[in-house]
Amino acid sequence: MSAPAAVAVVDLNSDLGEGFGIWTLGDDDALLDVVTSANLACGFHAGDPDIMRRVCEAAASRGVAIGAQVGYRDLAGFGRRSIDVDPASLTNDVIYQIGALDGFARVAGARVSYVKPHGALYNRAVHDEDQAAAVVAALAAYDPTLPLLGLPGSALLRHAEQAGLLTVSEAFADRGYTAAATLVPRTQPGALLDDPEAVAQRMVQMVGTGRMLSVDGVEIAVSARSICVHGDTPGAVAMAVAVRRALSDAGIEIRAFAS
Amino acid sequence: MSAPAAVAVVDLNSDLGEGFGIWTLGDDDALLDVVTSANLACGFHAGDPDIMRRVCEAAASRGVAIGAQVGYRDLAGFGRRSIDVDPASLTNDVIYQIGALDGFARVAGARVSYVKPHGALYNRAVHDEDQAAAVVAALAAYDPTLPLLGLPGSALLRHAEQAGLLTVSEAFADRGYTAAATLVPRTQPGALLDDPEAVAQRMVQMVGTGRMLSVDGVEIAVSARSICVHGDTPGAVAMAVAVRRALSDAGIEIRAFAS
Amino acid sequence: MSAPAAVAVVDLNSDLGEGFGIWTLGDDDALLDVVTSANLACGFHAGDPDIMRRVCEAAASRGVAIGAQVGYRDLAGFGRRSIDVDPASLTNDVIYQIGALDGFARVAGARVSYVKPHGALYNRAVHDEDQAAAVVAALAAYDPTLPLLGLPGSALLRHAEQAGLLTVSEAFADRGYTAAATLVPRTQPGALLDDPEAVAQRMVQMVGTGRMLSVDGVEIAVSARSICVHGDTPGAVAMAVAVRRALSDAGIEIRAFAS
Amino acid sequence: MSAPAAVAVVDLNSDLGEGFGIWTLGDDDALLDVVTSANLACGFHAGDPDIMRRVCEAAASRGVAIGAQVGYRDLAGFGRRSIDVDPASLTNDVIYQIGALDGFARVAGARVSYVKPHGALYNRAVHDEDQAAAVVAALAAYDPTLPLLGLPGSALLRHAEQAGLLTVSEAFADRGYTAAATLVPRTQPGALLDDPEAVAQRMVQMVGTGRMLSVDGVEIAVSARSICVHGDTPGAVAMAVAVRRALSDAGIEIRAFAS
Repeated sequence: MSAPAAVAVVDLNSDLGEGFGIWTLGDDDALLDVVTSANLACGFHAGDPDIMRRVCEAAASRGVAIGAQVGYRDLAGFGRRSIDVDPASLTNDVIYQIGALDGFARVAGARVSYVKPHGALYNRAVHDEDQAAAVVAALAAYDPTLPLLGLPGSALLRHAEQAGLLTVSEAFADRGYTAAATLVPRTQPGALLDDPEAVAQRMVQMVGTGRMLSVDGVEIAVSARSICVHGDTPGAVAMAVAVRRALSDAGIEIRAFAS
Repeated sequence: MSAPAAVAVVDLNSDLGEGFGIWTLGDDDALLDVVTSANLACGFHAGDPDIMRRVCEAAASRGVAIGAQVGYRDLAGFGRRSIDVDPASLTNDVIYQIGALDGFARVAGARVSYVKPHGALYNRAVHDEDQAAAVVAALAAYDPTLPLLGLPGSALLRHAEQAGLLTVSEAFADRGYTAAATLVPRTQPGALLDDPEAVAQRMVQMVGTGRMLSVDGVEIAVSARSICVHGDTPGAVAMAVAVRRALSDAGIEIRAFAS
Repeated sequence: MSAPAAVAVVDLNSDLGEGFGIWTLGDDDALLDVVTSANLACGFHAGDPDIMRRVCEAAASRGVAIGAQVGYRDLAGFGRRSIDVDPASLTNDVIYQIGALDGFARVAGARVSYVKPHGALYNRAVHDEDQAAAVVAALAAYDPTLPLLGLPGSALLRHAEQAGLLTVSEAFADRGYTAAATLVPRTQPGALLDDPEAVAQRMVQMVGTGRMLSVDGVEIAVSARSICVHGDTPGAVAMAVAVRRALSDAGIEIRAFAS
Repeated sequence: MSAPAAVAVVDLNSDLGEGFGIWTLGDDDALLDVVTSANLACGFHAGDPDIMRRVCEAAASRGVAIGAQVGYRDLAGFGRRSIDVDPASLTNDVIYQIGALDGFARVAGARVSYVKPHGALYNRAVHDEDQAAAVVAALAAYDPTLPLLGLPGSALLRHAEQAGLLTVSEAFADRGYTAAATLVPRTQPGALLDDPEAVAQRMVQMVGTGRMLSVDGVEIAVSARSICVHGDTPGAVAMAVAVRRALSDAGIEIRAFAS
């Protein structure tokens, strides 16, 4: 049959370390007790050296994998605004961010073990061939053994595969999917799911069967080695906890894809 | 006798990669043909990912050692304004910069092989025990085999030695020295030397004998494994070239202290 | 008699608009219902154009006076780190910030009606003659009718008076005072007061009599046209509300010093 | 006849004050002796408070009109990268920049007397309705009597006219035009003109007759109240000087459109 093979292991990833200076965002410590992979901001869209040091050490001490959450150079816009960065410069921006985070990971006795683009760069690399290739070129140059975490079907993962990089697909716990297995745009009904238990059961089903229901009730194939959860609100943390508990209760192993 | 032992080998170092975005500063390529160690700006006081990539590759291809020229986070002030950064934060700022540059050095097939503070941080670490210790803590955490390049007699080098780091003393080719073997302050006569040949011969004497003349004609002991030259004006480049040629003509080996 | 004359009117000021981009800080709306003067961050230590626009409009619609809370260019350090900015550059940094905020004040149908330095600049201008004079020079150049809000006895207010500027002294509701009528340093016991009702009564006494008790029980003279309250925690907002209510109940008029 | 009416007066504008911190760009003083309108960078893509102060004073002392050259917040990219800034935020970014520059203009005894978008914002506002409208909204809010300088036929000028703002069209001295009277893209032959005398005579013809030759030899109608010249290279300055001299020799009055 053509359905994706069911898997019995999954990773939980979340964006962490996204404060800057005096400003905080989300509950890093709560999420570090839930996830197996921490996407750490590297100073371009959020994150500063103090935060990077602290969260790297907190992640390493818990055995949580450290990923470089690379973004556009745009603190004012939190990396959520698409920027026409020249591909060669984008490659260098990504190398800079990976290198800076890797320094703190090493100090914490670990290493950057994967890369995931953030915000507008994540979204743009879904379809923009040049920027997708630029991100891939950064990994290829810095360390071609680093896996790239991204959206299934994206230009980003396609370019990474062509370059011989490891790729990891993710699903979003709190997002609705269309019948075409793409995310429901945030401007449309059903884009965001808010019932922790329903979300948790949906993820159990997705991991166990490789299938889940679209926003309009169609069964779709979704195969993901990692599930993205959020921690920027108390409700988000509660949902992440619920997802982890349900996966665990269902006998699914929760384990990072990289280490 | 009490004079420092004469040495037959010396390093030439210079601040490079100090542009930002569209803006340029100095003639990196000309200096890379002169020096054996390149102090590369890491993005806090100057330097951006494109520049760091390009100059790392240019340095590596010439066999010039790559050093992290770490500074305060102050693009607007070019790192020339002393900032009361908390020591713990300063340590992290330095780790961030070393890590970022090390990424580009690795991509170029090399490594960051030493660290030198820039501008106001360099000057402050001469006497500020807390900031000096904070810089040293960064190297100790990131890679305790990295040598620290600095001013002889500074708190910075003293803390580094106490921490078991390798230290390298530098002399300034174009600066006058007092009878106490300290630099003549820039606000006083004799602070800056501008005759390339006289400067070059002075450096030959310093390397060969461990002695040179102070601004008021007293013979002083100055022992340095590295000589700092500049490249931000055509005259500065000519002086750097003259120093290298004179050292070479005198049979002194010009070789990096790290690789 | 030598005691400061009792006054029956006082202003309440607070630091507002201190978020940046996605990051928030404090409860601007709650404080705008309490204070008569809003010290708005201008983008150098905090604040961005969206925040400045929104808080200017919120302040103007409530008749709250808009002040430029000028600081060092240091988002990463929230303006809390002293920086050796050249005085001429500091003057220009302050003009830039006042002008930028004044644009939004005008758009909101108001004007910047006073200036108060923030954080490390505030503290440094208490004693640093050059930086104090530099701030004063900015007001003198931009609009010499703008009052300067600051610490009684500071170099800042002294320079302002010498330059013919209007000066306004402030007291801190939640800070202990020494027998010499200076603030108890934050590192010492009694520096911070946390009982809203006690703080409120203390401010009523200060406004009514020009006197209050020092941390060691000595009656001291404190005369202030404005009281600084904070809003960065729920407790701080509650204290600000308590101070306002107590002043009002005591028949003291709460009115801005500028408009 | 359908040709634009010949005019006997024209303005010369140029981008100035585009250094940052230690970094310089172009020869501001040389250009200030040539142009009648100075587009001054406001700190987002280039320019800092010291530069803004100095160039405002230099412009004011020569009677050169001061314009706010507003751009994206992108020092690293010099404002040359299109950014998907939310229109409401873009409006506020523009107000911030105008206000900041206006502060320095006032200190210099002048005022910001027009606005011209820079770089990628200029190009995007040619066709992006939302961003064009956002820039226009900033002028309408800050001071609806401020003229907007831009490209003839652009969405920017169209929105400005609809909003009742004054608009001023500009021609580019050193750019080739297509038969459709649009600029030849920089990637195509004929995009850049480099013969000062030919350029100067072309501008004399354009001002005198409202017509000039396209890159493929077709006579086209180009009507502009202002001519943009550059000063970032010695050759550019020489061309600007040649244009001014030729216009003057032809009896054309060179006068700012605003004051």
